Amino acid sequence: MPQAATSTTRSPPAAPGWSRPLAGRFLVFDGPDGAGKSTQLRRFQSAAEKDGLFVTTVREPGGTEVGERVRNLVLNYPDERCGAMDTRAEMLLFMASRAQLVAQRIRPALAAGHLVLADRFLSSTLAYQGTAGGLPLAEIRGVGEVALGGCRPDLVVIFDVDPVTASSRLNPLLDRVESRDAGYQERVRAGFLAQAEADPAGHLLIDATASESGVAATLRAGLAERFPAG
Amino acid sequence: MPQAATSTTRSPPAAPGWSRPLAGRFLVFDGPDGAGKSTQLRRFQSAAEKDGLFVTTVREPGGTEVGERVRNLVLNYPDERCGAMDTRAEMLLFMASRAQLVAQRIRPALAAGHLVLADRFLSSTLAYQGTAGGLPLAEIRGVGEVALGGCRPDLVVIFDVDPVTASSRLNPLLDRVESRDAGYQERVRAGFLAQAEADPAGHLLIDATASESGVAATLRAGLAERFPAG
Repeated sequence: MPQAATSTTRSPPAAPGWSRPLAGRFLVFDGPDGAGKSTQLRRFQSAAEKDGLFVTTVREPGGTEVGERVRNLVLNYPDERCGAMDTRAEMLLFMASRAQLVAQRIRPALAAGHLVLADRFLSSTLAYQGTAGGLPLAEIRGVGEVALGGCRPDLVVIFDVDPVTASSRLNPLLDRVESRDAGYQERVRAGFLAQAEADPAGHLLIDATASESGVAATLRAGLAERFPAG
Repeated sequence: MPQAATSTTRSPPAAPGWSRPLAGRFLVFDGPDGAGKSTQLRRFQSAAEKDGLFVTTVREPGGTEVGERVRNLVLNYPDERCGAMDTRAEMLLFMASRAQLVAQRIRPALAAGHLVLADRFLSSTLAYQGTAGGLPLAEIRGVGEVALGGCRPDLVVIFDVDPVTASSRLNPLLDRVESRDAGYQERVRAGFLAQAEADPAGHLLIDATASESGVAATLRAGLAERFPAG
């Protein structure tokens, strides 16, 4: 068969029903800005929906009215005019947004059997305000326990990318967090890698420097391995 | 002296320098809405300033740009239109405001030797979101430890008032929290009383049903006892 010869260079077509084991599961897509996680999330959502799954997507910070207001507060806060935002305050604002998201969107969707895909979650706070920002990780985890109220992701997918590749993918009009210096972005990346290394069962680490379709294939294969069809 | 005959019915004039032991101290004025704590705070501030003390006053939520934005978000949040605000989210928003207040206003003022007077603090979160709202007090205390970063009040003054007296003092245009039902207000009061009872050394409980000047005299006497002049 001629198709067989080329099938090693593309992802094989997924069998119908491949996404069924993901019903009622909670996956987080995370990683540094510019890793392509939002693109991969939309792509994966579309594939899962075509396969018949109900998918609820949420983004952090945001996804609820409380979250959107927090997002606006944090990302457009005028440090110069009003005094720098305290790192603990920033962390607690993200946690407030997260608690609302869990209560209002994530729990009901999981209860309805949806696959929930979150663009960022606690893993971002650990990397940005913790490893990069200097807050003790134990403090963040403690507050996170309260904010999540036991609603933990089944898997956190970390899209890893080096800062040079990442910045080449970013909009030149950067927001307050994206525009921090290269050392900060390097620490963010190290924070995500450390989380994946410390808890391999809870994380799927993906090299996101490849092409969009290459990364999508790796993601699909990794998820199929973690959530095998009955 | 004729004055001596009437001095028992009014608070005695304070000796100059009475407020000196309060320099660099952090006092919280708290209690149910309508207890008169804000009035007492302004009155006490004025007396301490006349006595030569530098006084920094802060109010919660608010007191910083982050806090004012949080205050606006929480107190004017449209539950009906956007889905009820999750109690944990509300608690975490207040904590974010508090962390910013500690970092930006309270720590610097204490370091400069000011008396810091806070209108509400962690004690309010324990009473409103904890005892009245149903969040476990241990969760609130744990998050509070992180938000405060070790900056604890030297004394929490609780102005206690029954809900009937309190409501007679409140503006009829109530905000979102003030307008909750009588059972809620009763639980709030019980929450404050329980805090004072559990930690008598850290609290000063004042019957705030008396007249404004009567309460002020009780407050002054209580503080003089707790912080005696060298």
